[in-house]
Amino acid sequence: MDKDFLLETETAKHLYHDYAAKLPLVDYHCHISPKEIYEDRRFDNLAQVWLGGDHYKWRVMRSNGVSEEYITGDKPAFERFEKFAEALEMTIGNPMYHWCHLELKKYFGYQGALTKETAREVWELCNDKLQNDPECTARGLIRQSNVAMVGTTDDPIDTLEWHAKIAADPTITTKVCPSYRPDKAVNLHKDGFAEYIALLAKSVGKERLDSVEEVCDALVERLEFFHQMGCRAADHGLDYVVYRPCTMEQANEAFHKALKGEKLTLEEIEGYQTVILLCCARNYARLGIVNQLHYSCLRNANQRMFKKLGADTGFDMVASTDCIADLAAFLSDLDESGQCPKTIIYSLNPSDNAQIGTLIGCFQGPEVPGKIQQGSAWWFNDHRTGMTDQMTSLASLGLLGNFVGMLTDSRSFLSYTRHDYFRRILCNLIGKWVENGEYPNNEKSLKKIVEGICCYNAMRYFDL
Amino acid sequence: MDKDFLLETETAKHLYHDYAAKLPLVDYHCHISPKEIYEDRRFDNLAQVWLGGDHYKWRVMRSNGVSEEYITGDKPAFERFEKFAEALEMTIGNPMYHWCHLELKKYFGYQGALTKETAREVWELCNDKLQNDPECTARGLIRQSNVAMVGTTDDPIDTLEWHAKIAADPTITTKVCPSYRPDKAVNLHKDGFAEYIALLAKSVGKERLDSVEEVCDALVERLEFFHQMGCRAADHGLDYVVYRPCTMEQANEAFHKALKGEKLTLEEIEGYQTVILLCCARNYARLGIVNQLHYSCLRNANQRMFKKLGADTGFDMVASTDCIADLAAFLSDLDESGQCPKTIIYSLNPSDNAQIGTLIGCFQGPEVPGKIQQGSAWWFNDHRTGMTDQMTSLASLGLLGNFVGMLTDSRSFLSYTRHDYFRRILCNLIGKWVENGEYPNNEKSLKKIVEGICCYNAMRYFDL
Amino acid sequence: MDKDFLLETETAKHLYHDYAAKLPLVDYHCHISPKEIYEDRRFDNLAQVWLGGDHYKWRVMRSNGVSEEYITGDKPAFERFEKFAEALEMTIGNPMYHWCHLELKKYFGYQGALTKETAREVWELCNDKLQNDPECTARGLIRQSNVAMVGTTDDPIDTLEWHAKIAADPTITTKVCPSYRPDKAVNLHKDGFAEYIALLAKSVGKERLDSVEEVCDALVERLEFFHQMGCRAADHGLDYVVYRPCTMEQANEAFHKALKGEKLTLEEIEGYQTVILLCCARNYARLGIVNQLHYSCLRNANQRMFKKLGADTGFDMVASTDCIADLAAFLSDLDESGQCPKTIIYSLNPSDNAQIGTLIGCFQGPEVPGKIQQGSAWWFNDHRTGMTDQMTSLASLGLLGNFVGMLTDSRSFLSYTRHDYFRRILCNLIGKWVENGEYPNNEKSLKKIVEGICCYNAMRYFDL
Repeated sequence: MDKDFLLETETAKHLYHDYAAKLPLVDYHCHISPKEIYEDRRFDNLAQVWLGGDHYKWRVMRSNGVSEEYITGDKPAFERFEKFAEALEMTIGNPMYHWCHLELKKYFGYQGALTKETAREVWELCNDKLQNDPECTARGLIRQSNVAMVGTTDDPIDTLEWHAKIAADPTITTKVCPSYRPDKAVNLHKDGFAEYIALLAKSVGKERLDSVEEVCDALVERLEFFHQMGCRAADHGLDYVVYRPCTMEQANEAFHKALKGEKLTLEEIEGYQTVILLCCARNYARLGIVNQLHYSCLRNANQRMFKKLGADTGFDMVASTDCIADLAAFLSDLDESGQCPKTIIYSLNPSDNAQIGTLIGCFQGPEVPGKIQQGSAWWFNDHRTGMTDQMTSLASLGLLGNFVGMLTDSRSFLSYTRHDYFRRILCNLIGKWVENGEYPNNEKSLKKIVEGICCYNAMRYFDL
Repeated sequence: MDKDFLLETETAKHLYHDYAAKLPLVDYHCHISPKEIYEDRRFDNLAQVWLGGDHYKWRVMRSNGVSEEYITGDKPAFERFEKFAEALEMTIGNPMYHWCHLELKKYFGYQGALTKETAREVWELCNDKLQNDPECTARGLIRQSNVAMVGTTDDPIDTLEWHAKIAADPTITTKVCPSYRPDKAVNLHKDGFAEYIALLAKSVGKERLDSVEEVCDALVERLEFFHQMGCRAADHGLDYVVYRPCTMEQANEAFHKALKGEKLTLEEIEGYQTVILLCCARNYARLGIVNQLHYSCLRNANQRMFKKLGADTGFDMVASTDCIADLAAFLSDLDESGQCPKTIIYSLNPSDNAQIGTLIGCFQGPEVPGKIQQGSAWWFNDHRTGMTDQMTSLASLGLLGNFVGMLTDSRSFLSYTRHDYFRRILCNLIGKWVENGEYPNNEKSLKKIVEGICCYNAMRYFDL
Repeated sequence: MDKDFLLETETAKHLYHDYAAKLPLVDYHCHISPKEIYEDRRFDNLAQVWLGGDHYKWRVMRSNGVSEEYITGDKPAFERFEKFAEALEMTIGNPMYHWCHLELKKYFGYQGALTKETAREVWELCNDKLQNDPECTARGLIRQSNVAMVGTTDDPIDTLEWHAKIAADPTITTKVCPSYRPDKAVNLHKDGFAEYIALLAKSVGKERLDSVEEVCDALVERLEFFHQMGCRAADHGLDYVVYRPCTMEQANEAFHKALKGEKLTLEEIEGYQTVILLCCARNYARLGIVNQLHYSCLRNANQRMFKKLGADTGFDMVASTDCIADLAAFLSDLDESGQCPKTIIYSLNPSDNAQIGTLIGCFQGPEVPGKIQQGSAWWFNDHRTGMTDQMTSLASLGLLGNFVGMLTDSRSFLSYTRHDYFRRILCNLIGKWVENGEYPNNEKSLKKIVEGICCYNAMRYFDL
């Protein structure tokens, strides 16, 4: 993994080193904590950073037969790290192998391979930097990664106090924008809905919300607050995309049943959800906020572990959904009234690539080139083959040149190397096409395309 | 894009230049107008040819944020062309880039890259040829493309008058065969069904058609007329493949409801459709006509634009269907009575490749090698990766050597370069296998296979 | 197809020749006859071996337009073989081409290409060896293939008499283990269920089985017998994975209806099946037996041919199923009670790769690295692209290093070359990654990974 890692042609090397590598990152979708940025968190050791909450790594360990006490249990930090190092050897062909080594190289200067044998050496090297190097705190890591913008993920009821503090601090030059994620207001069939609606009421200074209209009003009020605080994007995490228009009466009936904890029919659930999703989307359009739709994930597949560890602990998987026609109808509904926002669509199932790649071409508009986007290969697909497939599909079916590119979707301050990984894969793909005569070796066009996908398209798209 | 475009090995170059490139084209499925052939239409300018009705190009422009007035609106021709040229730069990795440049090179002798900067130069060069060069009329383009056969797409009620005129004109050496496409008789649930049935009645000299039996009789009568006029193939454009056998009474009940404009159940729709599709297929078998089944397309996804521009304007997309078992049952039904015609199956969803590739192996017969075919990568899949995937899948699951190969599916007289594109991709694929030791470098076998897929298999299959 | 067939890099050649090629085979899932092993069957000619029951080859012939009398009919053996040789020329890109030539080379020393022209020469060469060479009997072929273990496929009511004889014969050094396949007890809706239950009763010394509980007890008793006889794995062939828990009363009701030949609802069928599948799985877990789940196959698609030739005659195809959530729920149910066995999952639909690759990561356990596995590319996918895709997906989504690797799934004693084919593809894939800098050129790690996937992981997994 030297400087030309993944760059198989001279054109790829040129495009990467002379254009892609130099550009700032626009990390428009991630899960890092604004509080940790503001407080400039420092980490004790590599186990804390890597194994503290990264369920990708937990899966790697479980797949190597490591017992849970080393994964989410209370075994000593180094022992846990050593088990991970041992498992890492088996991850040939997995992006985890590349991510870890790119991080070790970039942030800690480690050039070798992490194995059980080198685990102690890596441990000591990294911990020393984490504990002492000013470039290895939360802010330091962001700074050295040349991050222009971070889009966090926030609940509508969030006060955004940390975003305010960051905005007021002139020493933080990276834009840290909140993103609006109203999943809890959408999922009326899940535990805690009534409690959440009470909190939402409180966040807009009300006793309670008595109707779907009032929920919508509250969501819009919060969205406008988010917008004032610099919000550029919203995000919906959906099992599948819902589109089942209903009357406001029907939605209210479902809403009141949900508040009382009564059992809902699928029709009721989907009717209410459609109302909320349309309301949100129309307001995103009005405010110029980008809508992100994530779907086709089956969450908490392992009930024993869900009961033990809760959500987001490494027990999610790719689902099979059949909702592309509903997604089209959803966008068509919005488009008919001139209220379709900029939208990025992500499915966790890579078999959906062609569906999405052709859907986006049906809803473009003159507001911005590539108004409707297929999102970068999401989550489990965020590997070399997955990214290459997503970009090849996008290129084959639409205009790759207008793609807004990479995001980390990560909870870690070390993950910015994933942008580097993406940029190498992008330059390699384009380099091959050029050297194979599939696109002319036109410096100006290639520069425009590569710089666009790596940075400027996202800047334009998110109004930065 | 020189003479060895897409040919990465010496074997590929040899196979392409010495065999593939020299063969006539059998373009057994397209949408060009026989009237324009007969009248030897001449074009005013490149915008008329390229942007007059090619919704592929419209999508490219929309995806680049071009406003509709330049796409389907009334902006001046050159301005529209310039917007397209500008968008084309962003189509890296898209077949549109290759098609356009192959056309510019072959028909207009332009060697450069079309960009906003070169748009004027290209415009003038091409318009001069279009207006003055005798090889750049409809017939001239067909002539210089070495087209042995064109299969147009025609409604059963069509008089085929232009086909008759073409057949009677000894100066036209290309076979121009009508293809039978009875979609309007199948879609009893769509607008205009009753009016269409009236026209169908008229086309067989009847006042009206009073039953499904009479519809079938009329369809068969027209099919026999088409057959006499040189028809070699039929075509059905289906949302999904239907197979729900019903009694003739049930079909008639649905038919009469439809004529009266009453609302139909899904069961009624599918029952009637199954009757018609089976009737057609049995008669294709009897007359040696090839049945083509196209499915998994979601049409007119954007309702606002559909209301504004109508169908076939660039708002279609890949659907997700679940009909492979019904397709198998449909063919099995026909096969049981010895009435299964030669059939080519096309799904717009590339995830269906393996389903189709294994289905065809279940219904082969001794009538002709490769009696049941998986069609060439269709529409949105008609790009380098899509064609390579379709042929790799076909080869892995069946006998690539018997594949009937490429068709343009195009409305344009310039699209014959797509056969060239296909042939290069085919030769490149085979060349790699040979140079990698996966098939012996046996001149005789390779010649037979390449020439077969490029031309002779289709000649045999369509009885040319 | 020389010694470096499919090995495109120096690393690949090194890994294959120095590690992979030398290891014994663990063929843990196949359909060969233990009787033929014990009796050391000798074959008359190559048509008997190749065309006697190999429906893969029958499909190749049918796809070349060969009429059935040469395929399953009574035409003379050489004429049938010649028709196959002729069809083989058209199989460029199909694994059949490689398998046949690897077999001709390894077992018969034939270096050339089999065509219509060389058919006679190959015929005579091979028949001579088959009739006279001591290494070309059933046992001889196993011996020269360096097979450590064979897992046959056996019905629970099988007496395993041939397995007993083999075990008692010290001249047979290959372990020949029965595998438990209780499909007939699961499929209460298929013909012959009542008769089968009677035979199952008899196999445990009972008059009859009067309840689902008694069926379960009988199945467990037979499983324990299989276990004593060396059984390491079970296998379920399912149209799709079922998970619809029901009460024992409901299951019994369905069972009694089935015994009486009454028509069952889908709910009844799936309820009973869920009970049986869970009962089996729990007992596999208790005994350390590996559960194999095969699904997404549509069998006997061509009813005319099914009626003529019966099942397993070359008329099966890839189905489209939507059962991944049920599969997850099935494993979750077992895992919650600590009774989830080692499980290998195979779908016939390659579009399911990502679903399965992420599902397995949700149910791993400390019993063995890679407790839940995605099975090697199954049946129709068992080609170069299919195997490469399956391994790339597995590597991208999990730990390729713990993969249990290849199986033949074959009815033929000549098929062991498929392990060689797999090993070449594996080494080529890893070699590319290493030479591209995606994994370090660390001899120790690469040896561990390659030897693991080729042999030792399976030895560990199946307790050999």
